[in-house]
Amino acid sequence: MRRDNVYYKEDFLSHRKVTKELAEKIDKKNYGYRPTDTSMTAEELVTHMLSSFHQFACMAAGKEPEKLHEGTEDVSLNELADRYTEASVKVIESMDEETLEQTVDLTEMMGTKLPAWRLLEIAIDHEINHKGNLFVYVRELGYNQLPMYVKM
Amino acid sequence: MRRDNVYYKEDFLSHRKVTKELAEKIDKKNYGYRPTDTSMTAEELVTHMLSSFHQFACMAAGKEPEKLHEGTEDVSLNELADRYTEASVKVIESMDEETLEQTVDLTEMMGTKLPAWRLLEIAIDHEINHKGNLFVYVRELGYNQLPMYVKM
Repeated sequence: MRRDNVYYKEDFLSHRKVTKELAEKIDKKNYGYRPTDTSMTAEELVTHMLSSFHQFACMAAGKEPEKLHEGTEDVSLNELADRYTEASVKVIESMDEETLEQTVDLTEMMGTKLPAWRLLEIAIDHEINHKGNLFVYVRELGYNQLPMYVKM
Repeated sequence: MRRDNVYYKEDFLSHRKVTKELAEKIDKKNYGYRPTDTSMTAEELVTHMLSSFHQFACMAAGKEPEKLHEGTEDVSLNELADRYTEASVKVIESMDEETLEQTVDLTEMMGTKLPAWRLLEIAIDHEINHKGNLFVYVRELGYNQLPMYVKM
């Protein structure tokens, strides 16, 4: 039951691949789509998922998160998804057993301290939650042939 | 890093409590609400979450799933959520270390065999995914003060 960086990389990708498949269905003209006035737009939601996972993973690995895009940059969600996924995979791959067991101080953010591997799991849960939002957005944009929520 | 039934019970409840909080916001008159013609209704979605988790947990524990409601029964989603949550917690509590390590044959359903603890994790991921759908439904029903996706 012990888990290494390969396990976490595969677990992350089993969900991120689906996130990317959903993001590919969002035409640029629909980037501003939001189901209600108080919802994130499709673009904000996908960008939040990509950048949050990367930040969580960097915090878990004790690294400074990289800034992988500027708000003003004209870049597609597909390109952003590729960029962030590649960088996040590299961060997970860099985590050896000792790093995975290190305590990460999240007192300010979450009022607690956690082992790094647990923070990776929370990051994956965060992705699954928002991917669940994204499924509804994409269906509302007219798609009804949608993938399973995970690619094992 | 070894995990026992108490860990899995708490992990499950950290998400189920939020599912229940969202379900409480759905008035009976909105049980038939669906975001698109091809979506599950709010009632179908919540019922699917409750019964699927219970089935996964029973499969993991090597028990026959209980039938906790009839399609024709006039029962609120809150009552159903209480009923299923209580039963699912009991199933998880019944799983000792040996049961958690048992191999569950899911060849027909998922083309694979898994240890019982891994099936519990998949069941929790399934809950998180559909809870992500439910957040959008509830926002579309007029609520914009929504809880965090997990109650730690």
